[in-house]
Amino acid sequence: MNDKLRNLTMLTDLYQLTMMYGYFQNGMTENEGVFDVFFRPRDNVSYAVVAGLESVISYINNLHFTEEDLEYLRSLKLFNEEFLDCLAKLRFTGEIYAIPEGTVVFPYEPLVRVRAPIMQAQLVETALLTFINHQTLIATKASKVCYAAMGDSVMEFGLRRAQGADAGIYGARAAIIGGCNATSNVLTGQMFNIPVCGTHAHSWVMSFPDELSAFRAYAATFPHACMLLVDTYDTLRSGVPNAITVFKELREKGFEPVGIRLDSGDLAYLSKRARQMLDDAGFPKATICASSDLDETVIRDLKMQGARIDSWGVGTRLITAEDSPALGGVYKLSAEVVKGKLIPKIKLSDTLAKITNPGYKKVFRLYDREGMAIADLIALDHESIDCEKPLTIFDPEQPYKRMTLTDYSVRELLVPVFKNGEQVYSSPSVHEIAEYAKGEFATIWDEYKRLLNPHFYKVDLSQELYDLKKELIARDA
Amino acid sequence: MNDKLRNLTMLTDLYQLTMMYGYFQNGMTENEGVFDVFFRPRDNVSYAVVAGLESVISYINNLHFTEEDLEYLRSLKLFNEEFLDCLAKLRFTGEIYAIPEGTVVFPYEPLVRVRAPIMQAQLVETALLTFINHQTLIATKASKVCYAAMGDSVMEFGLRRAQGADAGIYGARAAIIGGCNATSNVLTGQMFNIPVCGTHAHSWVMSFPDELSAFRAYAATFPHACMLLVDTYDTLRSGVPNAITVFKELREKGFEPVGIRLDSGDLAYLSKRARQMLDDAGFPKATICASSDLDETVIRDLKMQGARIDSWGVGTRLITAEDSPALGGVYKLSAEVVKGKLIPKIKLSDTLAKITNPGYKKVFRLYDREGMAIADLIALDHESIDCEKPLTIFDPEQPYKRMTLTDYSVRELLVPVFKNGEQVYSSPSVHEIAEYAKGEFATIWDEYKRLLNPHFYKVDLSQELYDLKKELIARDA
Repeated sequence: MNDKLRNLTMLTDLYQLTMMYGYFQNGMTENEGVFDVFFRPRDNVSYAVVAGLESVISYINNLHFTEEDLEYLRSLKLFNEEFLDCLAKLRFTGEIYAIPEGTVVFPYEPLVRVRAPIMQAQLVETALLTFINHQTLIATKASKVCYAAMGDSVMEFGLRRAQGADAGIYGARAAIIGGCNATSNVLTGQMFNIPVCGTHAHSWVMSFPDELSAFRAYAATFPHACMLLVDTYDTLRSGVPNAITVFKELREKGFEPVGIRLDSGDLAYLSKRARQMLDDAGFPKATICASSDLDETVIRDLKMQGARIDSWGVGTRLITAEDSPALGGVYKLSAEVVKGKLIPKIKLSDTLAKITNPGYKKVFRLYDREGMAIADLIALDHESIDCEKPLTIFDPEQPYKRMTLTDYSVRELLVPVFKNGEQVYSSPSVHEIAEYAKGEFATIWDEYKRLLNPHFYKVDLSQELYDLKKELIARDA
Repeated sequence: MNDKLRNLTMLTDLYQLTMMYGYFQNGMTENEGVFDVFFRPRDNVSYAVVAGLESVISYINNLHFTEEDLEYLRSLKLFNEEFLDCLAKLRFTGEIYAIPEGTVVFPYEPLVRVRAPIMQAQLVETALLTFINHQTLIATKASKVCYAAMGDSVMEFGLRRAQGADAGIYGARAAIIGGCNATSNVLTGQMFNIPVCGTHAHSWVMSFPDELSAFRAYAATFPHACMLLVDTYDTLRSGVPNAITVFKELREKGFEPVGIRLDSGDLAYLSKRARQMLDDAGFPKATICASSDLDETVIRDLKMQGARIDSWGVGTRLITAEDSPALGGVYKLSAEVVKGKLIPKIKLSDTLAKITNPGYKKVFRLYDREGMAIADLIALDHESIDCEKPLTIFDPEQPYKRMTLTDYSVRELLVPVFKNGEQVYSSPSVHEIAEYAKGEFATIWDEYKRLLNPHFYKVDLSQELYDLKKELIARDA
């Protein structure tokens, strides 16, 4: 299955097509729309690790309606033939800027900015949100799990509980971006050249007359990579002793075992006892891997209890982001371009936090002299920052909270991905993205990353954007 | 994208391949394995509506490794050439029985039973679980949402928050099986001939100088299907009055409006006020559709508060099954066939509920004379029930709880899907499955379906299966 060939043009909400038809019938096809993808703060989301851009790129490059698609749309009896002819010719001709995958991002920041003829910009909304919402969700969850694991190896094991094939495939890719070392998912390994791992299940042990025969057969098959699952019958009375027997036999043949995996029971207690048994038997380097309904809070607690676990297999709760299984990202119109003139747009709401930021925007990240991130600034696209001069930033909800920066550096987060419909950005390998993500993560203070009650990172507005927003609120409210 | 052509053979966990290699290297390829897919009871799962079988059928029919797949597996340096040659020839040659999509099912029941040469049976575990777990989860969630909506129309709107494209595509299909009337997802509509729906977003309104112009333009485009979203600026002061103005203009042109959609704010209050305004203006038949973070509990409460909502658009919380985003179904070895002899297998555990049911099994559903389901009975495959005779059933965890049935009827739930690798079952259309599911749902007492503290439906074991289980526990423990 070559992902680059998959045409998902019809992966959209019907209302995108009815609106497109409305724009077509009302002579508005020449207008451009500017849309931002962003997410709002939620209980479990103080930061996110953005992912999904590679899927966006494939999708945009493949955007076209086939004859079969048009035949189906005709059958809905909603659209006229002129419109269907227009769809037949539709390709993406606009501009997309995005924050690269693996970057740590915060609420309200445009993660993707689309500027395109209004019909195209509307069509792509749903798929863009699906890709960015899902993959950012899982990359973020993985970063929390890996943060709790404090440098231990974390493996993604969730495919069987993923919400469909794509959730497994792209979820595993996102998990690597978020910090996992490997996945059990073979297709993801193949598609993205990601390390795959796995040994055997309980059914292997049950397929033999007894556990010892099963372990011996496994060791004979993989003498170089012998990792045994020890909890099929009784971990401490049967599994670990049988594993030790087989490890000794392996050593006599000149091989060192990899270790054991625990998949049930009290992992703190079992790992400490198993560690002692392995050490006493002369296998201090045999590793202990644990799995079984793990997530960042369970791992943190197991570590606190002194569990002797070297690597973690994390399944259901990672691949579904179980505590909060949707990021909730939105795609909001921020400007319209009519006859070349850019008109900023705002969506009002009774809730201050739900009022959108208008205009054609970009995002600055400000760093201190040690390279740690201080704050982000959402600004209008034509604005620039001169780092030689002091910069005063302020909280847009409580503008009396101000702070003046000197000795800082600045970086723009949005990079060009498509211009005039042409791809101008080439996606790094997943390995490169994961390395980049690790570096990015290190520029964020722990205070923003802790699992409970994190401090909220500052995302401010430039003075010019703030003034524009106030002006539009005053005009429309 | 033709789903029937998608080859997902590599959508598996690496440990399936390492175990297959182990069976191959240990001369066990002639052995057959019998595996059951089932789920255990969880807080939010008292019953489920099974779905995913059509995906299983496509997957099994496409099961084969391509040259590219084998090249990748070779690159892992885990397997020898004889094994890769064996994989190159691998096709599914076994047997699959399954409970048809749309059937109401309960914990511990085999939803899918696979009997095949052990390598094949092991390979397909992961993908089968992915499809059945995901689609059953969403069909079940949809059935709860629709149950709360008490016959009102429910539309699936969640694509943008789905965990990837497949979660949106197959989630929408499952939602229809669970009782939804339509989806916003165009690709699902096309692939499965499911009704699609949708009108316009806030961005439509914001693309015009004012709300009234936007409404007029929409009505001009879709005079026969005019449903207006009224909360872009101010629902009661602007949205509903502007909608009424446009509805009157439409009526003068000979068209009746469809209605309005509310997407934010207090839906109970707004719907009651909007209903009054529409009635007073002479539009008592204009419907009110609501969306905005809905699920079964919100809908139940809105109904209790007398909300005047006619149809419900349900997104994020349905498409992700937000309160419990994984079904947790498992695939357990229940028997092995060695040289034609069937050997029942059991997985022990310290927890009684986690001990598996051994043997080659089937499921009976018992009905009373009114056609309501009384209990299910898991039995061995060779067993039969003579409805002319009284039947005594008992709780397998508390065997003193017994009940003798007379005047009952019985139905076997598992049907043959593959025999000797050949498909012998043809999947009904989604429309037919949804109709069937509605009938199935009606045979289950409300006591088992209520949202809070449902009564648990009886899933008992036949005397013969119970005795076999006791015997294996006594032998292995």
